Amino acid sequence: MPASSSAHETLSSTEGTLYLIPTPLGKDPTNRVLPDDVIKTIHQLDTFFVERIRQAVSFLKWIGHPTPDFKCNFLELNKHTPGEDLIEMLNILKRGKSAGILSEAGCPAIADPGSGLVKLAHQSNIRVVPLTGPSSILLALMASGLNGQSFSFHGYLPKPGKSRSEKIKSLYLSSKKNASTQIFMETPYRNNDVFSELLELLPDSTPLCVASNLTLPEETIQTRSVEKWKKTKINLDEKPSIFLFLANEPDLPVSKNKKARPSKRTGRR
Amino acid sequence: MPASSSAHETLSSTEGTLYLIPTPLGKDPTNRVLPDDVIKTIHQLDTFFVERIRQAVSFLKWIGHPTPDFKCNFLELNKHTPGEDLIEMLNILKRGKSAGILSEAGCPAIADPGSGLVKLAHQSNIRVVPLTGPSSILLALMASGLNGQSFSFHGYLPKPGKSRSEKIKSLYLSSKKNASTQIFMETPYRNNDVFSELLELLPDSTPLCVASNLTLPEETIQTRSVEKWKKTKINLDEKPSIFLFLANEPDLPVSKNKKARPSKRTGRR
Repeated sequence: MPASSSAHETLSSTEGTLYLIPTPLGKDPTNRVLPDDVIKTIHQLDTFFVERIRQAVSFLKWIGHPTPDFKCNFLELNKHTPGEDLIEMLNILKRGKSAGILSEAGCPAIADPGSGLVKLAHQSNIRVVPLTGPSSILLALMASGLNGQSFSFHGYLPKPGKSRSEKIKSLYLSSKKNASTQIFMETPYRNNDVFSELLELLPDSTPLCVASNLTLPEETIQTRSVEKWKKTKINLDEKPSIFLFLANEPDLPVSKNKKARPSKRTGRR
Repeated sequence: MPASSSAHETLSSTEGTLYLIPTPLGKDPTNRVLPDDVIKTIHQLDTFFVERIRQAVSFLKWIGHPTPDFKCNFLELNKHTPGEDLIEMLNILKRGKSAGILSEAGCPAIADPGSGLVKLAHQSNIRVVPLTGPSSILLALMASGLNGQSFSFHGYLPKPGKSRSEKIKSLYLSSKKNASTQIFMETPYRNNDVFSELLELLPDSTPLCVASNLTLPEETIQTRSVEKWKKTKINLDEKPSIFLFLANEPDLPVSKNKKARPSKRTGRR
């Protein structure tokens, strides 16, 4: 911690650290998603707050965790976890034990449980450390070619029906107003259904990206206009997917904006 | 590519792949940010579209790239790059050469150049593959304890003055309406200035997160109410930082919502 900031002075070294541990987005045969240093950090922990114990154990085996699972402490942390269980987790950290939050896939506390405990940790001046790993939202946005300077994520859309249609229309208007990319998900068995509705509701010129099975061997990411999608056969059923669209694209630079640039073809410094 | 989807049938194996390569968020002594498999993928490339050549060469040395930099092909890709240079890059891919986009720090095409070329790649049915690495936006959001089910990123705020104040006020209203976390950055030398303005404009109860030097040894991430921040000495000058706030927190589950849960203390399957 930098000496110039007093923000951390209340942090006691007797307290544990709360790590946020990303996990693979699916059954990944190789490790495309976790840096070695992150794996080393996880290896040092034996206490985990997890969305589902079975997945957590399977993940720890996958990264070769040295502590057998029956010697690890797992506490469930999901949308049903009551406040008093969060306090129990907080107390573990306060007693000096470091622990990690694990969600089923991707980053904890982002479209997944965990933020309630992180909030309590901050209130108790417990150090929170996010570890680098895969986020389907960011991977999809990066690869979409849509606006990455301004974007909004909306989690899961409402169930099919009037409220979902209204939501899609309001996202379109918001994107049109702010030139911001709109990002959302659906439960995988409703992917084809929401995709059809997007093609129905969005104007033909709207660029729409569908990113499925991210980081996995069968990954597909494609951005097309709604008009082109209407002519494409695609089956998204049961494939973990993320949808992105942009109603109003910011302008690309064109050659009349050309500025003096340094030589661009050499790697020599 | 899955046989069940015809979306990729137009992809030709004679075309190159466009990789999106994340880079460290600062001078990282160890590698906390890139998976081995990602490094291996980058090692196979010798053509790079880069925000700044010097940083790109330094990054490739850091990951032990086997090809000497003078044998690599670097083309500049930044906000001044004109459309015809993008077409040149696209043609390289079309001729069957794979290439990677590298930004100075973090993920290409997210608050950084690259999306224009990615868009053209999709239009030419060139495969786009995002690689896993650090994103200050996602790391900060994960560790903030703020709402990760709904959030908006706004890039850099307008310059200080009336338009920045109006922007902050409008983000507050939007957060209040949608319970969505608002995320933005400032140029590092204006961090203290925008932080003061946030304390001035946001109501005392608003939780505000400041995340600086993410993934680096001097990383600090803290979420406090505006009221508590007003009593805290903090110097953010020149520290790469990201700011997040939430005007209207979604409710946490409480014990009366308790549902039947499986045993929570065992790791045994």
